[in-house]
Amino acid sequence: MTSAAPSPPAMPTPLAIVILAAGKGTRMKSDLHKVLHPIAGRPMLEHLLENAAQLAPERQVVVAGHGREQLERELGGRATIALQEPQLGTGHAVAQAKTALEGFSGDVLILYGDVPFVRAQTMRTMLDRLHGGDQPPVVVLGFEPEDALQYGRIIAQGDRIERMVEHKDATPEQRATRLCNSGLMAVRSQDLFALLDRVGNDNAQGEYYLTDIVNVANEDGRTCAVAVTDDSDEVAGINSRGELAQAEARWQHKRRAQAMADGATLIAPETVWFSWDTQLGRDVTVEPNVVFGPGVRVADDVVIHAFSHLEGATLESGVSIGPYARLRPGAVLKKGSRVGNFVEMKQAVLGEGAKANHLTYLGDAEVGAGANIGAGTITCNYDGYFKHKTVIGERAFIGSNSALIAPVRIGADAIVGAGSAVSRDVGDGELRLVRAEQLVKPGWADSFHDAMKKKKAEKSGK
Amino acid sequence: MTSAAPSPPAMPTPLAIVILAAGKGTRMKSDLHKVLHPIAGRPMLEHLLENAAQLAPERQVVVAGHGREQLERELGGRATIALQEPQLGTGHAVAQAKTALEGFSGDVLILYGDVPFVRAQTMRTMLDRLHGGDQPPVVVLGFEPEDALQYGRIIAQGDRIERMVEHKDATPEQRATRLCNSGLMAVRSQDLFALLDRVGNDNAQGEYYLTDIVNVANEDGRTCAVAVTDDSDEVAGINSRGELAQAEARWQHKRRAQAMADGATLIAPETVWFSWDTQLGRDVTVEPNVVFGPGVRVADDVVIHAFSHLEGATLESGVSIGPYARLRPGAVLKKGSRVGNFVEMKQAVLGEGAKANHLTYLGDAEVGAGANIGAGTITCNYDGYFKHKTVIGERAFIGSNSALIAPVRIGADAIVGAGSAVSRDVGDGELRLVRAEQLVKPGWADSFHDAMKKKKAEKSGK
Amino acid sequence: MTSAAPSPPAMPTPLAIVILAAGKGTRMKSDLHKVLHPIAGRPMLEHLLENAAQLAPERQVVVAGHGREQLERELGGRATIALQEPQLGTGHAVAQAKTALEGFSGDVLILYGDVPFVRAQTMRTMLDRLHGGDQPPVVVLGFEPEDALQYGRIIAQGDRIERMVEHKDATPEQRATRLCNSGLMAVRSQDLFALLDRVGNDNAQGEYYLTDIVNVANEDGRTCAVAVTDDSDEVAGINSRGELAQAEARWQHKRRAQAMADGATLIAPETVWFSWDTQLGRDVTVEPNVVFGPGVRVADDVVIHAFSHLEGATLESGVSIGPYARLRPGAVLKKGSRVGNFVEMKQAVLGEGAKANHLTYLGDAEVGAGANIGAGTITCNYDGYFKHKTVIGERAFIGSNSALIAPVRIGADAIVGAGSAVSRDVGDGELRLVRAEQLVKPGWADSFHDAMKKKKAEKSGK
Repeated sequence: MTSAAPSPPAMPTPLAIVILAAGKGTRMKSDLHKVLHPIAGRPMLEHLLENAAQLAPERQVVVAGHGREQLERELGGRATIALQEPQLGTGHAVAQAKTALEGFSGDVLILYGDVPFVRAQTMRTMLDRLHGGDQPPVVVLGFEPEDALQYGRIIAQGDRIERMVEHKDATPEQRATRLCNSGLMAVRSQDLFALLDRVGNDNAQGEYYLTDIVNVANEDGRTCAVAVTDDSDEVAGINSRGELAQAEARWQHKRRAQAMADGATLIAPETVWFSWDTQLGRDVTVEPNVVFGPGVRVADDVVIHAFSHLEGATLESGVSIGPYARLRPGAVLKKGSRVGNFVEMKQAVLGEGAKANHLTYLGDAEVGAGANIGAGTITCNYDGYFKHKTVIGERAFIGSNSALIAPVRIGADAIVGAGSAVSRDVGDGELRLVRAEQLVKPGWADSFHDAMKKKKAEKSGK
Repeated sequence: MTSAAPSPPAMPTPLAIVILAAGKGTRMKSDLHKVLHPIAGRPMLEHLLENAAQLAPERQVVVAGHGREQLERELGGRATIALQEPQLGTGHAVAQAKTALEGFSGDVLILYGDVPFVRAQTMRTMLDRLHGGDQPPVVVLGFEPEDALQYGRIIAQGDRIERMVEHKDATPEQRATRLCNSGLMAVRSQDLFALLDRVGNDNAQGEYYLTDIVNVANEDGRTCAVAVTDDSDEVAGINSRGELAQAEARWQHKRRAQAMADGATLIAPETVWFSWDTQLGRDVTVEPNVVFGPGVRVADDVVIHAFSHLEGATLESGVSIGPYARLRPGAVLKKGSRVGNFVEMKQAVLGEGAKANHLTYLGDAEVGAGANIGAGTITCNYDGYFKHKTVIGERAFIGSNSALIAPVRIGADAIVGAGSAVSRDVGDGELRLVRAEQLVKPGWADSFHDAMKKKKAEKSGK
Repeated sequence: MTSAAPSPPAMPTPLAIVILAAGKGTRMKSDLHKVLHPIAGRPMLEHLLENAAQLAPERQVVVAGHGREQLERELGGRATIALQEPQLGTGHAVAQAKTALEGFSGDVLILYGDVPFVRAQTMRTMLDRLHGGDQPPVVVLGFEPEDALQYGRIIAQGDRIERMVEHKDATPEQRATRLCNSGLMAVRSQDLFALLDRVGNDNAQGEYYLTDIVNVANEDGRTCAVAVTDDSDEVAGINSRGELAQAEARWQHKRRAQAMADGATLIAPETVWFSWDTQLGRDVTVEPNVVFGPGVRVADDVVIHAFSHLEGATLESGVSIGPYARLRPGAVLKKGSRVGNFVEMKQAVLGEGAKANHLTYLGDAEVGAGANIGAGTITCNYDGYFKHKTVIGERAFIGSNSALIAPVRIGADAIVGAGSAVSRDVGDGELRLVRAEQLVKPGWADSFHDAMKKKKAEKSGK
């Protein structure tokens, strides 16, 4: 990636990004702002910001219209929000960023909140071209889709743009070209607003089009340039739930391939859903149908059986979970521990080699190494007002169907009898049993059966 | 779809449909009648009847052979069943409908029980053509598949049929045409049986082919017409479980696209299975792997987490369920209520804002607004003979691992202690606890461990 | 498949197979030997051995390098392991089998551990060709992939090989041919090592290539032959987790089609995962998302609902399980029995018509015909050291949320009250209840609520 440029390395030009996010997103049919719809568990806007962050922009401006409050809540001051009201086109939208860019001198990259997967590398290519020998006033990102029909065309000689043509205005010859306009642009700040000022709205929609700054520059004899991406997917706009699902699918497809390349076996990769931040070790096996929510870290040699659902969980090496394991935030599984089927963990630590194999809820709990949590054990962590903690010692044995009423502490090597509801602490090596009176009524069941059969016969006889 | 016809609108011609369903369906390898195999949770025959119902047919005849009883049970009088025995071809099959159509004068539409997804609009096009200017005696539905190889061809000039040709009898030139015979036909009742009477069985199979009525009419100088569908899928016959799965997949694909267009987010659309009657609101989010059985209604702003399975359930707005929620018929979740993991509901109402988050069974129950059902709670609704009801008051708190032995009533704001088996009513604001004797045996566990380790060593020493 | 050969049937020539498995498998990024990675629940090496077993080889040699111990453990004497150290190419690898083949006279088939799905029929074709009229010294298996770019080419006239060409050495004309070298070969034992001895390593890698034996034979004027498979998939090598997933997908795709052809309905075939040994009856319905582990046998008329996971289980006719049924090894479901949601069975027999419908764990248990296991029932089969058995009689009724503390026996027609922990046997027709003291504290809950609300207010007030 290093060039043999003879000139000394220049200080990088300051960068501002302007993200357009004022569209109504009507086709989403949603009360949630379009750019806040999540992909891989994270709003699309955040994906875009993360990619742009690799270029360390000095300023970030988001142009908002509808749903501005939602954007403010998401961004929390990380970007300046410029209001566009009413919405009079993309050129008008960028013009609203003028105040936010006051005093800024450098490059401006114009991005779209609903085109979230543009790579940093592509952005860099655009900026590099902006500072190329012929110093074009504008660099447009072009792409060459399989089916170019609906897109505006870039008519270029080499990478120098002769004209931008809307699809509806294009001649058959122009339509035959496949170089399309993504809408993304890089412009120097000193040029941007001067060019925008000269853009008119003399068109069918009565809108100010950002694209027109290319033609305006051309009128001055300043030729703009095009940078072309080889990955059409990165400029795919997301305008409907269908396109959202497609973007999710593309993201997941890449992530699954990466996981396999890194040494994980996904038996049915198309049925494993990762989150944007999932970490997976080597020699990890993932059975079909596993969902990773945010915040999951999985070490080496872990087996995740089918139908497991993980969020905010940490799995140390040699751990085995599922099928049907549900790990919620704060679940920590120490080395070689095991969680079986229909088991839920939340804010709970399972010690080294400890086991909770069946139908169990461990919430706000600490389980010591080597402990065995019997089937149907429930930590009663909530009294309707506050959460309380259960602490279970090393090698303790919790009998099946027990209720541990927190706050409570079970000692090391202690045993809790099956079916016990334990509300007081149990000491090390102690046995705690609930020994309720066992009523035995010989013959009672037989009489009951007789009576009920008669009743049933009567009912059906009616 | 409106035509500029100068003539005044005529009274619609009466319609009869004849559905052929006498085939053995050998390739299904099933004891269930082929046309009763379900797609999207409903027998394929019902899909066909529903589509045809949009044309309000006066009479419905199903021609049956094998498995007639199963058809009778399904139809329950909604159609006349005409018996075809033995099965001597499609022409012979339609001829069996003669008695059922006695006294009927109007149009007859010939459909196939294993071609269930013909649209009403297509049927209408066929009937409209039947009443077109040249008044053809028969209208055949043609289609143009990608790969036409195995199908019979329709040799036509414009939409007027010159000849019907079986694939095996076709010349290379005829095979090169792509217009194929779907088998579906529209015929006037006065023509139908007269034409059928003249169809012979002088062919390799010794069968009477319905298709031959076209050639018979031609002999009289009466030219038949073809109506062509642009959707080959709608005439796809289902003859094997493989084709059944393909039809299911096509149905689901369309339904998922519709759900997204209507404003639902399906994170992985290909893993959501709808039923024929699923109703879904706006801003509903469906995580991967959700199965909708029949009778589910979901309001706006509902979240359905992964691995959930719903049948006959009603979810009001703001509800959140799963992962691993299992809602069975009669489950009603009021506004903002929440059902968590490994929870089953059946004939049970969960009040506004109420929660049942973990490992719970609510059957024949009514839970008041704001109540909290602890982990592992079981409503014991069945005594082996009858079902009984559990009623839980508003804001009641059911401690974890409790068994509520119905019939039983828990008052408003009442508390049931964890691990309790409650068989008597609990009043408002009352506490009910099972307080069994707690036996403590200090050191017992340690002695037990010693003894068992010794025993284990002895066993492995053998 | 019978030929009209005039000569009398010869005794079959003895066969030895040599499986190359010395590669490092670097791209797998795994501590597990590449050929031991499982597909459909079985190491790929075992798939290959099973296919080859249909030809009843007299000797089996596996050439190993890295991870030899893992291979020895897997094979346990079923094949001779020949060590290749260092690894100097495929020719060198085969040469290491010399000792293991000492005294053997017959055909040698050279296979690859990471090419596991070569059909027996293809192997037979290769051997038949070896004994064809012109008695070629070597038969190479060729294939014609869609995209041949990276493979070595076989330059042949008819099926007689003129030359083997590495892709990098191929002329444009040679590259235009699509007949590629799979690497699999059949050679007579008397020729094999003589030819190998003459192979040199005068090439860029300094390796001894097995392919070169063809050219060596050519130098002697002995022309080798090519047998061509029409199924490129069977010679697909597995070198990465991605390719492993693809092989799994291909295997599953075929198996699903077979299951449907045999009369099972798979509602969403692409979400059902079979094991290599799954047995499925007729009129079986499998809902979406079902995982079959090894050792499952399913009889006719069984319904497997969504999200079920089965291993080592036997389901008799008319059984219904799931959704969310988890059947582990030793689970036996007798005729018409039913297992519902969130139920786990392990080493347990469920009698004819018996039911365990909700949130239950049945381990080391025997349940009689017609018995009803209530929701939340747990068999406490483990005391931390040994497993114990639970026996439940016919028509017994186990109340919900019961813990059956094994070893324990519940009689026929007996009833166990809901919420009971039963540690002593219950006789036939007997009722066993745990009747703990029920404490009632009127108004207590109200006071508690008041106190807690105050506390909560204080906390949030800080």
